[in-house]
Amino acid sequence: MKIAAISGSLRKNSTNTGILHALVQNLPAPIEVDVIPIDGVPLYNQDVNEQGIPDAVLEIDKRIRRADAVVLASPEYNYSITGVLKNTLDWLSRVPEQAFDQKPVAIVGASPGGIGTARAQYHLRQVLVFLNARVLNKPEVMISHSGQKFDKEGHLTDQKTIDFLQTMAQSLKKMVDN
Amino acid sequence: MKIAAISGSLRKNSTNTGILHALVQNLPAPIEVDVIPIDGVPLYNQDVNEQGIPDAVLEIDKRIRRADAVVLASPEYNYSITGVLKNTLDWLSRVPEQAFDQKPVAIVGASPGGIGTARAQYHLRQVLVFLNARVLNKPEVMISHSGQKFDKEGHLTDQKTIDFLQTMAQSLKKMVDN
Amino acid sequence: MKIAAISGSLRKNSTNTGILHALVQNLPAPIEVDVIPIDGVPLYNQDVNEQGIPDAVLEIDKRIRRADAVVLASPEYNYSITGVLKNTLDWLSRVPEQAFDQKPVAIVGASPGGIGTARAQYHLRQVLVFLNARVLNKPEVMISHSGQKFDKEGHLTDQKTIDFLQTMAQSLKKMVDN
Amino acid sequence: MKIAAISGSLRKNSTNTGILHALVQNLPAPIEVDVIPIDGVPLYNQDVNEQGIPDAVLEIDKRIRRADAVVLASPEYNYSITGVLKNTLDWLSRVPEQAFDQKPVAIVGASPGGIGTARAQYHLRQVLVFLNARVLNKPEVMISHSGQKFDKEGHLTDQKTIDFLQTMAQSLKKMVDN
Repeated sequence: MKIAAISGSLRKNSTNTGILHALVQNLPAPIEVDVIPIDGVPLYNQDVNEQGIPDAVLEIDKRIRRADAVVLASPEYNYSITGVLKNTLDWLSRVPEQAFDQKPVAIVGASPGGIGTARAQYHLRQVLVFLNARVLNKPEVMISHSGQKFDKEGHLTDQKTIDFLQTMAQSLKKMVDN
Repeated sequence: MKIAAISGSLRKNSTNTGILHALVQNLPAPIEVDVIPIDGVPLYNQDVNEQGIPDAVLEIDKRIRRADAVVLASPEYNYSITGVLKNTLDWLSRVPEQAFDQKPVAIVGASPGGIGTARAQYHLRQVLVFLNARVLNKPEVMISHSGQKFDKEGHLTDQKTIDFLQTMAQSLKKMVDN
Repeated sequence: MKIAAISGSLRKNSTNTGILHALVQNLPAPIEVDVIPIDGVPLYNQDVNEQGIPDAVLEIDKRIRRADAVVLASPEYNYSITGVLKNTLDWLSRVPEQAFDQKPVAIVGASPGGIGTARAQYHLRQVLVFLNARVLNKPEVMISHSGQKFDKEGHLTDQKTIDFLQTMAQSLKKMVDN
Repeated sequence: MKIAAISGSLRKNSTNTGILHALVQNLPAPIEVDVIPIDGVPLYNQDVNEQGIPDAVLEIDKRIRRADAVVLASPEYNYSITGVLKNTLDWLSRVPEQAFDQKPVAIVGASPGGIGTARAQYHLRQVLVFLNARVLNKPEVMISHSGQKFDKEGHLTDQKTIDFLQTMAQSLKKMVDN
């Protein structure tokens, strides 16, 4: 199984990007995780779109299509997903024959407080209805109190959470295999 | 009453920006409407944020603070507000003593289909709970079938909708005056 | 394919119940539709629950389990699903080994205005994440301007909408077969 | 200030009803809290409605009108508010000149897990947009890990949470006074 993974945070030591790196390091072969950067995506503008899809978007699109499943990680900013992630999804949705169509997707997130990005995740689920993705119901990965589970560089150090990510990956694999 | 107005669409002939221009042209003095462009806002990145808030963001922030009320217009992309608008709000939320705090806000939107951006508007309402804005409940401005109400350059030509915008502005004024 | 169908409206001439009757009458054999009444379900009370699940709930639960898929129809009351439907789902969720677990579900709705119960449907989708149902993404059946498509007794008379329901049923069947 | 308070749970030892009793016991005079039972409300049925509004509903409606503000407490069932609370709101919305119109409302909730009913609260906020209530943004009262803060009879015993409820009541009073 090949997983394409996207983080909604651009900062270097992001805990949400850290979740994706933890997948890379901990999921056993033959599961491969491709963490796709989105910092090169311009602000969406339909006038630009009419000139063609930017290369940065086409590259992300291509790597998603290559994958069997997608993992989306997002901080919760202002009770929703980040504008940065939404902007990337807005661009991707303009590529003909959408890459997310029927694609198995898992949503994960980490936050310093108790909610673990729940509010953001249900917004993202609504977006993924439009994109016609198959979104994993369970387990929901909402990592609360991230300050105790990640180090300062954003590496996930909490073994229980690492184990939980493996459970999530198995559920995602089951969805891919069906 | 001074209204700061922001559109979540960057394209030139946007119908959502067109709603804001209709406010400029049709609201009677002494109501003033300041349409604030957001195309210069970079993608949010906390590492950049730690170096300071970009000038483009500070400029928007200043114009919002100067206003008595805000009107937010957004297309519905993928069943939510645009990434471009969310990204601007994410930046604005990092300016100390938030500009939206206790600020009266009205949400408007236009879409070619029948839903009139309703799905996007409830996401935006959730974001504005965090920002502690006072959001107008009624009337809700959800302009459906925009193809029949705006011309090709995005000018609002439907008189009934223009009248409805004036009703909305009066409700917003009442909220400001209280 | 056996479909269990539940309406969130109790009134006799409900257009939402009318959608379900249109399924009964128009889906070709061997698709069978079982419209399950929910008017005998008491208000949920955990103290009562501890004495056992009421027979009215067990009967609904049994008929859902017997089915390969479920269709839920709900009017939109106050921008959400009806309390009556939610109350039934609250009871059903207390039956051990939930009937909705992994069950294919389609959501449908009709409303007199332009929105076609969209606001209610996304709330219901969030509920069904918890119940771990597999909810059909597309087509979304949001029947707007119901006054023009149903007669006074709540019978669906609009042929285009009937055809659309058949498309929905085919998508649901495909989900069941996978 | 007179507060009308409604709990979405019918069980005797409910922690959500316990929040309301904590308000009764801890808010200083001249704040009065009227906890209104809703267990006598029948399932909503428009055919019944056309015969008139049931007395149980009219009684709740009257007590809400008498109050300056409302506090709504709800457990989170299946990621939303309870059917029991929604059913009561559905009935109340049918009384002419809605009692919630322009009424200051605070939402509170308690749950055994970490989320503290957040998912339910945003659904309730959307319902209250329709009812045109003025809903308090902050503080949001989401009491997580209720097992540590309430006793077996549902009495709130955690002093920090009691203090927080008093802060909420002060914010609600400020909204009423404006």
